[in-house]
Amino acid sequence: MTRHFFNELESLKRDILSMGGLVESAVAQATNAFLTPSAEHTDQIVDGDAEVNALELRIEEECLKVLALYGPTAKDLRFVVAVFKITNDLERIADLAVNIAERAKGAALEGVGPMGQDVREMSDRVQRMVRGALDAFVSLDAEAAQNILKADDRVDDLLRDVYEAQAAAVTGGEVDFKAALRVLSFAKYLERIADHSTNIAEDVIYLASGDVVKHQY
Amino acid sequence: MTRHFFNELESLKRDILSMGGLVESAVAQATNAFLTPSAEHTDQIVDGDAEVNALELRIEEECLKVLALYGPTAKDLRFVVAVFKITNDLERIADLAVNIAERAKGAALEGVGPMGQDVREMSDRVQRMVRGALDAFVSLDAEAAQNILKADDRVDDLLRDVYEAQAAAVTGGEVDFKAALRVLSFAKYLERIADHSTNIAEDVIYLASGDVVKHQY
Repeated sequence: MTRHFFNELESLKRDILSMGGLVESAVAQATNAFLTPSAEHTDQIVDGDAEVNALELRIEEECLKVLALYGPTAKDLRFVVAVFKITNDLERIADLAVNIAERAKGAALEGVGPMGQDVREMSDRVQRMVRGALDAFVSLDAEAAQNILKADDRVDDLLRDVYEAQAAAVTGGEVDFKAALRVLSFAKYLERIADHSTNIAEDVIYLASGDVVKHQY
Repeated sequence: MTRHFFNELESLKRDILSMGGLVESAVAQATNAFLTPSAEHTDQIVDGDAEVNALELRIEEECLKVLALYGPTAKDLRFVVAVFKITNDLERIADLAVNIAERAKGAALEGVGPMGQDVREMSDRVQRMVRGALDAFVSLDAEAAQNILKADDRVDDLLRDVYEAQAAAVTGGEVDFKAALRVLSFAKYLERIADHSTNIAEDVIYLASGDVVKHQY
């Protein structure tokens, strides 16, 4: 049983990484489409989401199978539960990438509010957070995961900057409400992707150290 | 063991219902505060969130304990997993109630865009969805859960109506960007609460029938 069980855990880890790869690439593509802005390739992102959903269901089934077959305890149980949760966060990140892709279409066809350095910095940071959270999971690195939690504060500040910039642009008559709202929605989706990355980081800290950091930030 | 295990499951069910009661009341209070709008009592909602977070952690620990001690399989395993997921959705609904409460303060102090029948109907419907999802869980009623999934479509339509109404109000110079955005954010939070209610309904359908309906809607 031990060898089989070990193989199952390794297989779960590989599945999470496959899913993580797909999700990272969806976020990158959607973000680029919005920043360009271009209506091209956005359908691809929407279609790719089906693959992510299928992987989520498969990993969930796999987790249930491992729980039922091996009844893992202590650290092994925590690992399976963490995989279960991380899968859920990755799936939601993929959904948010789809939302961004949909906005990218609107942005390309109907225009957007001003996109300054704040928007671009936010895009870069959030993508680094997703990648960082997955890397921390692979190496079970609690310190790297802590850094993700800290990075989230800057993202919240940037969201506020974007909000003020869009409000000023509408008030000044430079853009209409809907155009400004597209940029703000984009920034809001990025912020939620950052939140899911911190959820993953919290699970890594719990896994690596046994500490519950959820609800402390 | 059987009797103890049965007691554990009953205790988990009671915990979910306590948590559900707190969450329902947070949503009702936050929504009323926004619709009134009034800055009163909103701190209470923010403070109450700590209790919900504590309950979430306790229920998660309890689920892990049950998995480790009894290694449940089949239907029992699915029940524990469903409790785990539902707890997570309830916690997020409570967070969204806090977000609404924060907006209610801004709304009271700095004004809001027009709040017509669409906003009020959305508030009512979403609150009914939260309650309905919890009721469906208690009675393991897959049909009632299916109705929640259907109700979500109307909420999406209402969100679009709210968006158009706010855009028109800004364009017509009746309100400023920030005031309109407060109503739109409120509606968006309600829509996300509705989404979490459908997640719970999907878990109930899975529990009651073994069918996976996730990603079909």
